[in-house]
Amino acid sequence: MNYSMIIYILGWILSCEGILILPSYIVALVYGEFASGNCLLIAAALCLILGFPITRKKPSDSVFYTKEGFVTVALCWIVISIMGSLPFVFSGVIPNPIDALFETVSGFTTTGASILTDVDAIPKCLIFWRSFTHWIGGMGILVFLLAFIPMNGGYHMNLMKAESPGPSVEKLFPTVQSTAKTLYKMYLFLTVLQVILLLIGKMPLFDALTMTFGTAGTGGFGIHNDSAASYSPYCQYIITIFMILFGVNFSVYFLIMIHKTRKALQTEEIRYYLGIIAACVLIIMFNIRHMYPTLEETFRHAAFQVASIITTTGYSTTDFNYWPELSRNILLLIMFVGACAGSTGGGIKVSRIIILVKSIGQELRHFIHPRSVTKITVDRKVVSSESLRGIYAFLAAYLLIFVISVLLVSLDNLDGITNISAVASAFNNIGPGLNEVGPLANFSVYSNFSTFILTMDMLAGRLEIFPLLLLFTPETWKKF
Amino acid sequence: MNYSMIIYILGWILSCEGILILPSYIVALVYGEFASGNCLLIAAALCLILGFPITRKKPSDSVFYTKEGFVTVALCWIVISIMGSLPFVFSGVIPNPIDALFETVSGFTTTGASILTDVDAIPKCLIFWRSFTHWIGGMGILVFLLAFIPMNGGYHMNLMKAESPGPSVEKLFPTVQSTAKTLYKMYLFLTVLQVILLLIGKMPLFDALTMTFGTAGTGGFGIHNDSAASYSPYCQYIITIFMILFGVNFSVYFLIMIHKTRKALQTEEIRYYLGIIAACVLIIMFNIRHMYPTLEETFRHAAFQVASIITTTGYSTTDFNYWPELSRNILLLIMFVGACAGSTGGGIKVSRIIILVKSIGQELRHFIHPRSVTKITVDRKVVSSESLRGIYAFLAAYLLIFVISVLLVSLDNLDGITNISAVASAFNNIGPGLNEVGPLANFSVYSNFSTFILTMDMLAGRLEIFPLLLLFTPETWKKF
Repeated sequence: MNYSMIIYILGWILSCEGILILPSYIVALVYGEFASGNCLLIAAALCLILGFPITRKKPSDSVFYTKEGFVTVALCWIVISIMGSLPFVFSGVIPNPIDALFETVSGFTTTGASILTDVDAIPKCLIFWRSFTHWIGGMGILVFLLAFIPMNGGYHMNLMKAESPGPSVEKLFPTVQSTAKTLYKMYLFLTVLQVILLLIGKMPLFDALTMTFGTAGTGGFGIHNDSAASYSPYCQYIITIFMILFGVNFSVYFLIMIHKTRKALQTEEIRYYLGIIAACVLIIMFNIRHMYPTLEETFRHAAFQVASIITTTGYSTTDFNYWPELSRNILLLIMFVGACAGSTGGGIKVSRIIILVKSIGQELRHFIHPRSVTKITVDRKVVSSESLRGIYAFLAAYLLIFVISVLLVSLDNLDGITNISAVASAFNNIGPGLNEVGPLANFSVYSNFSTFILTMDMLAGRLEIFPLLLLFTPETWKKF
Repeated sequence: MNYSMIIYILGWILSCEGILILPSYIVALVYGEFASGNCLLIAAALCLILGFPITRKKPSDSVFYTKEGFVTVALCWIVISIMGSLPFVFSGVIPNPIDALFETVSGFTTTGASILTDVDAIPKCLIFWRSFTHWIGGMGILVFLLAFIPMNGGYHMNLMKAESPGPSVEKLFPTVQSTAKTLYKMYLFLTVLQVILLLIGKMPLFDALTMTFGTAGTGGFGIHNDSAASYSPYCQYIITIFMILFGVNFSVYFLIMIHKTRKALQTEEIRYYLGIIAACVLIIMFNIRHMYPTLEETFRHAAFQVASIITTTGYSTTDFNYWPELSRNILLLIMFVGACAGSTGGGIKVSRIIILVKSIGQELRHFIHPRSVTKITVDRKVVSSESLRGIYAFLAAYLLIFVISVLLVSLDNLDGITNISAVASAFNNIGPGLNEVGPLANFSVYSNFSTFILTMDMLAGRLEIFPLLLLFTPETWKKF
């Protein structure tokens, strides 16, 4: 294990975080929130004091294998979460460190689940920081590092692989740095576009920025107690569209960028993704039609909620807790499906679902023609047996962690659907669940122990399990 | 597709069923229930009239591939279920044919879920038939056919493969017929042993027989409204032990029979199976200790319920609906785990769970030593890639059917845990669920549509999905 290299990267990550806290300090100055602003400043200073000295000397040994990449990513996410929670603790907004960590992890992992009971009462600068963590976590903090910090060596790909969601990482360019830069450029472009469109809809600048951070990262921290319910239909439609856009695999945008729009729209994942959304919206519209006065409103709420849940954002415009069971179950189901691989969304990912469903067809064909060799293909390319093994192992680990988490959380003796949906929501980085953790409720009903379990679930979900599992596997740390 | 051969086997199955209905007629005579008895007799006659003539001429072409085996097994199970439901419809005990089919499928698939609201009021001979279907379905009706009817040809193994639960079939003897015979001998031996032990416990003969049929097939139809709650602690312990015994892979008993006890007890599946039971009983005991006056009673209820659910039997001695959330969730979890492969129990099966968990470890090792070739082994034997593919495809199909079923059933707008546990209970062939389908409730709350969906789930669960899926795949019926 290349410890010096791991520490070196941790140093950079801390320095980055120190810088990234500063925009929130500016918000504090604008709104005259000096006490909270100072807390942000102290946290930023701590990050820089701890991190910057480490970055001064690059280790000579830059050998860096997969396991180092995975462990580094897991450690980085834990460290940024701890440091990022300090402003909440220092300012007394969330005095309990476990709750503050939950809130920050929920931010970076783009979950959007909150333990805050009254968001409207929180200082603006901390709301800004909370929403900004979504934006940072969405595309990935290590991808950010790879894009903007001059580093070289063979370790880039192993870092990117560990942090990017989905069964495989597509390199848009031969070098990791150009890929990371292009990803962030596209991310920034879509972010700015959404802010402008929301401003046109007469949304205040502060709201437009924070709501966009939450959309871009598919995070979903509301900045008001009623999430997105009080915004105009126009703004709700804009948010719906951008949630869906940020749930798309970014390599699709790259294809569009290089004028291969047709190829982009033909990828199987995007077609299934849009197909699932359309089907769910239609079914839910039928199911909830009687609850809203007009067809437009029915459509708007159905589309918003489906887009919000499948992209694992978690905003809401209505309390879907009171929807009929079928609609509630569809939402619970698409919590697991999640967005596309290579997007900012969480969940199992559409591409994995496609391959799992295809494996059923493959098995059936095998029974019908036992001697034929059948391969699973996606976009006319054969899925390698290594990818398949990875997907199946992911599914097994996913189910195991899900089940253990539900059991542990059920010690609090809340009802079953609350527990199942709370874990589903945290693990898939969504935000709200059902019943006692529904869209207008929050996670403060849980004990410290359960809050901690859910925090770990959010991290495991964002990093797609294996980096965290490797971190806690003794064999990882053995010398050879 | 060898149609004449499929019809020939269906003829034999019908004839078998005609004969197997007759013991219930004797019960009718003993209790003087002549009206119900006649209904049984008419059903038996119908089976024989339809089936016997077909068996008179063996088709010349006995070529029989995997897909024929799977399709035949699926058709056989549908046919015996329809014919087996006739006595309930004729006698007016369950006038609705969909409900009668549910009850009979629940019997043959050894689920034990019931739509009857007052079991104590049903004629004894029909209760006997209902419990006897558990015994027939437990070891499998085609295995019965293979064991006792003189047939030859290469199709045996393909039938047995399709009907036997678990990822692979172990042949105890070189020929399928000896294997099937030995399985039924061991099954009969354990059945008789349990009846004797229950009679020693002063259980009435009728109760001892029917309760044993339910235990042996891991079915779980209660013959009283309170299931097994009114029996003596001795009888409850006997039932607990035999539920666990019938959940064991029968090849273990074969090893014991040929004096390889040590090897038998060293198989991984049996160790994990007993380990899971012990762990669950312990945790639940802690969790429910305050609900029962003595430690003995706490242990008895915990052990009975855990054994009943993990073996997918479904008897109950207490209303676990009122247990704390943790215990309820543990029961919900082990509904999915199920019993050992090659037992009479349902669920995903312990052996599949072992392999799924091991695949997580394999993936972790792959990250740590990327160039090493790692294989998954069970009992020191490498699991073939074909077996692995089958297990993963099973898991994918299992999850897909589970999710679709929950969505369809939720149209009835009952609460989420009722729906999830009802589907889990039907699909894993258990019997009771939670909330509105809890151990002291029944499935009559569901509409005809949902009842039908749950009926299909029971069949899909018992036949491990693929036979039913193949039956409804158009490609199966194509000519080549």
